[in-house]
Amino acid sequence: MARIRLGMVGGGNDAFIGGVHRIASRIDDRFELVAGALSSTPKKARASGEALGLPRIYDDFRQMAIREARLKSGIEAVAIVTPNHMHYPAAREFLKRGIHVICDKPLTSTLADAKKLVKAAEKSEALFVLTHNYTGYPMVRQAREMVADDIIGKVRVVQVEYPQDWLTKEETFKQAEWRTDPARSGAGGSTGDIGTHAHNLARFITGLEVESLAADLDAFVPGRLVDDNAHVMLRFHGGAKGMLWCSQVAPGKENALRIRIFGESGGLEWAQEDPNYLWHTPFGEAKHLLTRNGAGAGDAAGRVSRIPPGHPEGYLEGFATIYSEAANAIEAHRDGKAPDPDVIYPTVLDGLRGVEFIDACVRSSQRNSAWVTL
Amino acid sequence: MARIRLGMVGGGNDAFIGGVHRIASRIDDRFELVAGALSSTPKKARASGEALGLPRIYDDFRQMAIREARLKSGIEAVAIVTPNHMHYPAAREFLKRGIHVICDKPLTSTLADAKKLVKAAEKSEALFVLTHNYTGYPMVRQAREMVADDIIGKVRVVQVEYPQDWLTKEETFKQAEWRTDPARSGAGGSTGDIGTHAHNLARFITGLEVESLAADLDAFVPGRLVDDNAHVMLRFHGGAKGMLWCSQVAPGKENALRIRIFGESGGLEWAQEDPNYLWHTPFGEAKHLLTRNGAGAGDAAGRVSRIPPGHPEGYLEGFATIYSEAANAIEAHRDGKAPDPDVIYPTVLDGLRGVEFIDACVRSSQRNSAWVTL
Amino acid sequence: MARIRLGMVGGGNDAFIGGVHRIASRIDDRFELVAGALSSTPKKARASGEALGLPRIYDDFRQMAIREARLKSGIEAVAIVTPNHMHYPAAREFLKRGIHVICDKPLTSTLADAKKLVKAAEKSEALFVLTHNYTGYPMVRQAREMVADDIIGKVRVVQVEYPQDWLTKEETFKQAEWRTDPARSGAGGSTGDIGTHAHNLARFITGLEVESLAADLDAFVPGRLVDDNAHVMLRFHGGAKGMLWCSQVAPGKENALRIRIFGESGGLEWAQEDPNYLWHTPFGEAKHLLTRNGAGAGDAAGRVSRIPPGHPEGYLEGFATIYSEAANAIEAHRDGKAPDPDVIYPTVLDGLRGVEFIDACVRSSQRNSAWVTL
Amino acid sequence: MARIRLGMVGGGNDAFIGGVHRIASRIDDRFELVAGALSSTPKKARASGEALGLPRIYDDFRQMAIREARLKSGIEAVAIVTPNHMHYPAAREFLKRGIHVICDKPLTSTLADAKKLVKAAEKSEALFVLTHNYTGYPMVRQAREMVADDIIGKVRVVQVEYPQDWLTKEETFKQAEWRTDPARSGAGGSTGDIGTHAHNLARFITGLEVESLAADLDAFVPGRLVDDNAHVMLRFHGGAKGMLWCSQVAPGKENALRIRIFGESGGLEWAQEDPNYLWHTPFGEAKHLLTRNGAGAGDAAGRVSRIPPGHPEGYLEGFATIYSEAANAIEAHRDGKAPDPDVIYPTVLDGLRGVEFIDACVRSSQRNSAWVTL
Repeated sequence: MARIRLGMVGGGNDAFIGGVHRIASRIDDRFELVAGALSSTPKKARASGEALGLPRIYDDFRQMAIREARLKSGIEAVAIVTPNHMHYPAAREFLKRGIHVICDKPLTSTLADAKKLVKAAEKSEALFVLTHNYTGYPMVRQAREMVADDIIGKVRVVQVEYPQDWLTKEETFKQAEWRTDPARSGAGGSTGDIGTHAHNLARFITGLEVESLAADLDAFVPGRLVDDNAHVMLRFHGGAKGMLWCSQVAPGKENALRIRIFGESGGLEWAQEDPNYLWHTPFGEAKHLLTRNGAGAGDAAGRVSRIPPGHPEGYLEGFATIYSEAANAIEAHRDGKAPDPDVIYPTVLDGLRGVEFIDACVRSSQRNSAWVTL
Repeated sequence: MARIRLGMVGGGNDAFIGGVHRIASRIDDRFELVAGALSSTPKKARASGEALGLPRIYDDFRQMAIREARLKSGIEAVAIVTPNHMHYPAAREFLKRGIHVICDKPLTSTLADAKKLVKAAEKSEALFVLTHNYTGYPMVRQAREMVADDIIGKVRVVQVEYPQDWLTKEETFKQAEWRTDPARSGAGGSTGDIGTHAHNLARFITGLEVESLAADLDAFVPGRLVDDNAHVMLRFHGGAKGMLWCSQVAPGKENALRIRIFGESGGLEWAQEDPNYLWHTPFGEAKHLLTRNGAGAGDAAGRVSRIPPGHPEGYLEGFATIYSEAANAIEAHRDGKAPDPDVIYPTVLDGLRGVEFIDACVRSSQRNSAWVTL
Repeated sequence: MARIRLGMVGGGNDAFIGGVHRIASRIDDRFELVAGALSSTPKKARASGEALGLPRIYDDFRQMAIREARLKSGIEAVAIVTPNHMHYPAAREFLKRGIHVICDKPLTSTLADAKKLVKAAEKSEALFVLTHNYTGYPMVRQAREMVADDIIGKVRVVQVEYPQDWLTKEETFKQAEWRTDPARSGAGGSTGDIGTHAHNLARFITGLEVESLAADLDAFVPGRLVDDNAHVMLRFHGGAKGMLWCSQVAPGKENALRIRIFGESGGLEWAQEDPNYLWHTPFGEAKHLLTRNGAGAGDAAGRVSRIPPGHPEGYLEGFATIYSEAANAIEAHRDGKAPDPDVIYPTVLDGLRGVEFIDACVRSSQRNSAWVTL
Repeated sequence: MARIRLGMVGGGNDAFIGGVHRIASRIDDRFELVAGALSSTPKKARASGEALGLPRIYDDFRQMAIREARLKSGIEAVAIVTPNHMHYPAAREFLKRGIHVICDKPLTSTLADAKKLVKAAEKSEALFVLTHNYTGYPMVRQAREMVADDIIGKVRVVQVEYPQDWLTKEETFKQAEWRTDPARSGAGGSTGDIGTHAHNLARFITGLEVESLAADLDAFVPGRLVDDNAHVMLRFHGGAKGMLWCSQVAPGKENALRIRIFGESGGLEWAQEDPNYLWHTPFGEAKHLLTRNGAGAGDAAGRVSRIPPGHPEGYLEGFATIYSEAANAIEAHRDGKAPDPDVIYPTVLDGLRGVEFIDACVRSSQRNSAWVTL
């Protein structure tokens, strides 16, 4: 099976997430990176492309979309790893030319853009994959399967959080800079950058949608223009309740995404920093610790595991799973088929839900934490 | 130094917390239990008193208060360990006769009673000690000392929670029964029984008072008359923000009280189920794990430790510390002195704060989670 | 039921373990301390007894044994908490007068003394209880019950260790001083002080006796006369194998006693510093975490638990369980009965096994780690 | 920089470690797999090569060595991932033709072969890299750097272990089959397969060599021809002592490689299943938890980290680091230079040490655990 020809928009020399996408695309050997417009600055785009030894280097993404679409062996898919505000304009160009899009999150920097992107994706024959990468962790898949199989009963309570500490002080380095600029990142700060991950993880595992939320957002660091800490109460369709906390000013927390779900007959607990474990606490029994690919873990986790239990898989492997799911879908698409029903990846609609979440948080907080319907 | 003569109200044969108070009173050998009215049912009061070999057994607490006050060697202090609604009437009788009161929490079942009890305590020469026992844990004292010493900087965020699972299903046994009856437990269910512990712990460690809160309370088990799960957003005087979660329907959680505090320069984390540890995470340094009485722990924790580090102290020892602090205060009172400034115990005002917290949670929830000022 | 009248030998003002015994004897309210010879220095014995408000204070233990035996309400039991070399002479005096002995470990400082003490105990009608206190932890009882019930199958491998760090440097304070003096502590240093605990714990849980051992002992701190680190390979009767490590020079380790047992169908793991947990890892299933008194824990643990799961019990409670088991046995003895078969406590023979273990370690190490039969 | 052309010997369809090597070689994009003799069965070799889309597929490794050496763009390096007994014959063919060898561990199945392979490597201009992959974990590098920098003082005690449970029962599947056949795996079972990892890790971090060892080996499963559990006492040159335990019959243990090192002024602890953490316990201070790339971690770890702290890296990333170090060395070799002094990888001499370790374990155990000098 020939590897899928991949292009990349963004991800130049000093970016972080572009490098992650590139490793993720290589791990399972389903993609080959052959083209890129790696920066909005042509000179940097060219230097970055050369550093990677890319066969085809472009000054900007429009140029790349146009030319690649015309090539016989042009790219079949593009990874968009720019700051948030460029997701929509870039994705649009490729979608309308039938090139599959693998896009970083949040979907867009504004709700209006998100809606337009949904339409663009719906109109296109190409696939749209959003890298809510935490859904690629095997034990997240395991948790989702257990909820779906009614192992913990009807969900009552969801506690999800994503604290970090890297913005505890005023920061000026690149990663911090665009993420705290509303023009590029959107109206949400921590809510957009990491709150959307927490929100999506809750949705992914429980299968529940947030009906409304009440949020209290803060920018603790003086002069910061977007939230760096958010407290959110959640009401899900169907009656479950939840709390969501995200923060970038929590000293000692690195990427401490964690979710706990309590149903009528059991609980589940998973933490991103120790991702090969899943606690299952059936009511009235000893607590169970499941390990990735280990005894007691099921098919959904095993399907996306590469190595035996006790040999930890990490963030890059989880990210690679999103790429491999994309590959599964793209290969099926090549043949005009639907992918295997086990293939799961976040879609443009998941992206829309995320931007709606950010928007609702901001509006609720502006209205003194009034409940806002999503 | 003669041991303090102690009486007890409530705590008969099948009660839980009465036995805890009795062990706690013995651990440091400062008290001697010499009288009791251990049940509101005279027959049971008598049988329970005899089972304990009490020198003086009473049918009811009024009788006990009257007679003990007249005895030359009557009780100097009384432990009140009844259901909540009896705290006020019982405490009043002893306070007005100059007998020190050691009372279980929450202070009362209604806000009106709480205010009356504050007045009664203020009028009395006797001391009033509330057994918010978690404040007796050495590493809680350590945390409080560190916040006071500005080790983590100005507090920005407080995350506190107290989940349990024992009311996941409908329950009919005694401990569950009165705790889910608003007439005896008060308007709060989980908020009163355990939420007050979480609220008090946050106040105790940070020294901050809650300015207002927004709450979303649920009774997930059909037919339950009081909340069994509560989500609360907090705003503290001075600008810190917080979240508080308490639940009695969280399968797998036993008594998982946990607090995390984040300041401008560091974080602290403590969990009741593993109480001999305290995480301190100074921003920009390796994470520090402090152990009770271990290297790096300070005087406030050492003062209330009994044994070397690595030999765990538990719940009963923490509870005993409240009794020993009471003994310190009572002995100073015998001599007409103020106790040593290091002596710390929860007071009737802490109890009032707790009942105000319950009341605010209930009112906010009734008003669709509107912010309610305390 | 009248409390058992207790005396104490050793445990004066600046001792550590005496205070622990006294708290342990009070927790379950089965004993009353009424007499003491708390030091070998009469002046200190008197001052220490007065500080505790003891009714009867003696200058030395022989005097105490003689006089108490003649009193109508003399002590029924004595706690011996002196340095090791005094255990035998003190215990002998009480045993021969029919006074029950509760003695700290190791049994004696020499193997010859240990054998004499066994004979003295066998000749006496009085009971002899050795405070291998770790056998009082509920989850240790749970583990023992599970092995006995064949839950993990035939035991193959035992890994047990007890590292500490308090003797990492040269120390001169009292606790260190006698423990590193062979005349008072015996030929074993870490082997005697903590290795015996590890050895006894392995025997207690598995029910297996060590057939032979090969040891490599070191005194890492210059000038130290007894071992401060010991590596021991074990062969048990019946074919199981084991390793035992004890150390007092392991920086970061406080009282990190830990045992792991692997059978043909499952494993068990327990750590003294987190004693309310027991891991059970059945082969081919998810790992199970049992909590004290929690779901899935059995009768043996529940019988010696005082409070609900999630409220941690610690070292003092475990120690108190040894006292309560002694009380159970003494009360049965009062009535001329055998105690309930559930009553378990370490005996003089367990003590002999411990001293044999020390002796074998020393001899094996002297013979370049040759296997020595116990 | 052109990617290094890589071949592979072994690693056909149903092998485990071959797939790991392939992913590892891709993660940092320094290699391109272009040729293979993936099985000793020509038909399977061909099918496996085709499944991977290899440009050049060979029936056997000799053929591949001969032909590739003659090609202008033949392979520059070969990964040898066969069962142990084939390492030497395969490596020899490539070494003598100047093709770099990246070889799985243990080095060979016999000590004689190991010595011959050392000579072959010394005679060759090509590099020899042994995939003791655990040395590629960033926090292992961190530990090594800390010992070298004297952060914990002179090392006194090393505790290292590698328990697994996959051979608890009799097994017949392929991975188990050759590993329990002395003809293919060598005289050591668990000692060879995982004990060598533990031994090498201790050497790597401490910089100390084992002077002698005393071992007690067992084959607990009836009929097993090689050890499945080994207890080993270690004496290091310079006076440090150690214990090493490896087992394949420890239910609940997956790949629980763990090392603890205690020096005169501090301790270190690392566990493979949670590899992003390193405990540092300076004597007399709070315990420190270091995280990969996190605050307090140093250059040696940062140099081989790919992503920020809190985003876990795992087994494959650690393995990839060995490949990247090999790439660093190979690229330097292309230019006739020595690699940067920071470049570290296990060599053929490390492999010899490992086979000597296995041999010494077997001999010591045969001589009733007598000390055997390495």
